[in-house]
Amino acid sequence: MSTETLNQRCFNFSAGPAVLPELVLEQIRDEMLCLPGVGSSVLEISHRSKEFGHILNDARDRFRALFAVPESHDILFLQGGACLQNAMIPANLLVDAEQTGDYLITGSWGKKSSAEAHRFGNMHVAWNGDDDNFCRVPDSSEIHRSANPAFVHFTSNETIQGVQFHTEPDAGGAPLVADMSSDVLCRPVDIDKYGLIYACAQKNSGVAGVTVVVIRKDLLERCSDRLPLYLNYAKHSAADSMANTPPTFAIYVLGLVCKWLQDEVGGLQQMQAINEQKSNLLYDIIDTSQGFFQGHARTQDRSIMNVVFKTPNAELDAKFIAQAAAENMTTLKGHRSLGGIRASIYNAMPVEGVETLGNFMKDFLKANG
Amino acid sequence: MSTETLNQRCFNFSAGPAVLPELVLEQIRDEMLCLPGVGSSVLEISHRSKEFGHILNDARDRFRALFAVPESHDILFLQGGACLQNAMIPANLLVDAEQTGDYLITGSWGKKSSAEAHRFGNMHVAWNGDDDNFCRVPDSSEIHRSANPAFVHFTSNETIQGVQFHTEPDAGGAPLVADMSSDVLCRPVDIDKYGLIYACAQKNSGVAGVTVVVIRKDLLERCSDRLPLYLNYAKHSAADSMANTPPTFAIYVLGLVCKWLQDEVGGLQQMQAINEQKSNLLYDIIDTSQGFFQGHARTQDRSIMNVVFKTPNAELDAKFIAQAAAENMTTLKGHRSLGGIRASIYNAMPVEGVETLGNFMKDFLKANG
Repeated sequence: MSTETLNQRCFNFSAGPAVLPELVLEQIRDEMLCLPGVGSSVLEISHRSKEFGHILNDARDRFRALFAVPESHDILFLQGGACLQNAMIPANLLVDAEQTGDYLITGSWGKKSSAEAHRFGNMHVAWNGDDDNFCRVPDSSEIHRSANPAFVHFTSNETIQGVQFHTEPDAGGAPLVADMSSDVLCRPVDIDKYGLIYACAQKNSGVAGVTVVVIRKDLLERCSDRLPLYLNYAKHSAADSMANTPPTFAIYVLGLVCKWLQDEVGGLQQMQAINEQKSNLLYDIIDTSQGFFQGHARTQDRSIMNVVFKTPNAELDAKFIAQAAAENMTTLKGHRSLGGIRASIYNAMPVEGVETLGNFMKDFLKANG
Repeated sequence: MSTETLNQRCFNFSAGPAVLPELVLEQIRDEMLCLPGVGSSVLEISHRSKEFGHILNDARDRFRALFAVPESHDILFLQGGACLQNAMIPANLLVDAEQTGDYLITGSWGKKSSAEAHRFGNMHVAWNGDDDNFCRVPDSSEIHRSANPAFVHFTSNETIQGVQFHTEPDAGGAPLVADMSSDVLCRPVDIDKYGLIYACAQKNSGVAGVTVVVIRKDLLERCSDRLPLYLNYAKHSAADSMANTPPTFAIYVLGLVCKWLQDEVGGLQQMQAINEQKSNLLYDIIDTSQGFFQGHARTQDRSIMNVVFKTPNAELDAKFIAQAAAENMTTLKGHRSLGGIRASIYNAMPVEGVETLGNFMKDFLKANG
């Protein structure tokens, strides 16, 4: 292959780690050997240096401004992904033996989250969409909370099933806890409604290795000194996310992504409009394909981040994926647990990428429908 | 400042995150927008993709070859730093109520490690250098193990005090556990002597965000299913470090650093010789300064990674640090807990950087001695 071919960028529909804004990648590249005026790469500077202090504060300030996080909530940058949060949430919040961790299970990730809670206390499934093959979120009348929830947990967007909450479930006064790993920053959110929000960065806000936690400050009082240091939200909060060496590069990238959302996109309302435009483009093709393309999620619960669908059979699915790859659209294969096709169209996926996929879908329908 | 000045690289003596080989930084830069032939940045590809599978396997294989890790031991790539290991080690290994976690405390990091063990079982301090201001490692006669240690933990190199073990302490048959965060890959190690070795990457093997764990496979049987998923070594081992999304970029950099050590340096024996050459150059200047420069560590326990010393007074220390910075030698300030001067000269610090510092020290001695 020629150098040009070797370095040609594709439209990358990966579910995560996923596409980043090209402007962000270019800045990372340009600064890789030397942060301007610092004499070292961002990879090489001490987390205690004033230069990294500026990077950390800038990332936190931009995230706070962009996501409209009120001063009642703290912002933490942690490691271990959503996986470690699944343990930290009940470990920190489920401290009263009379209380229960309530979970709404709308897909694979919600199921995983709920599976850790019993190690720390009482777990209650307030709704489970497993019988419906996780194709929808619950109607409010279907949610059955426990008598005394310590918190109510839900997954705002299920990456694998392409199912998204478009309004918050009612927590009945208990702290609402949300895994927003795959849709954080895709739209404005009323943070006042939440006790805790967590999101690993590699889908919509940066790279693998950092997880943002937004926690209502009064909940920090629940965190027990008996917890190991790394598992204790209060310790991370008191140390300003520097209880140990934070994932410096991933925090730097998160800051650059927030800057891109502010300066290039214009904020989360604009981002939401673009995300709706992109996802509608694909859903419209699915809906007008006379059943050739079949979406997984119930219409009103469809995700604006992960468009999950299939063709009439697995053979055609495979043909679709292979032909798309040949036309520089990569990673369209559905998750191994569900099969079919999945187009993840996070914030950083350009409209042009979705239009290219849309045109490909129309051509594929004509040729195979 | 001109662009050239803005992008001029310094000799960076940071204790961590720390200097990386320039060849590694250049490759990261060159591949930032597109891994050759892949169509996306390494930051954007799924951890389940065959391309990342290749990167992960390559990093693990290179680390195994370079560090001579036998098949009896598994290699894991985890998040949370040494801080989370301080909890995971007793959580996984201290499962018998009749047993004790034994700790040798030779500096600030060993102290932190030992502070987590009591949450999970019995902790025993087998030696503590606090009374000696952590200037040395124990002689073998000074180590007092408990009657029944589940493991014996030590810190092979204390970054803050510049104290390094040059032979392993005797664990009396119990698994030897070592925090090698700041000296992994600085020299060959006989892995057969160890039950578990852990090292966060940002000092000597890569960037912040990944911690390498080398664990003897029979110890995985101790790991209880009662542990949260992320804290369970056996789960990470069974999932090949992919129990959740691993820190993909940090693993990629670790692989590049191992490749540099193999291809450019020629292996760990050569690296040790260079590290001894570099550290001897500075220690010789200290030793022949007629007491102007005073090293912190006892001579035979001096670190080949972190050279910790001071001048006759704090004012001269500050002058030294400021003048060195003006001559493009950065981050020479000692840790805030100890003061003075610290030159961290990890694998990636070129001999030229140490020579430049050495010449500066001689000049400073002439002018101020």
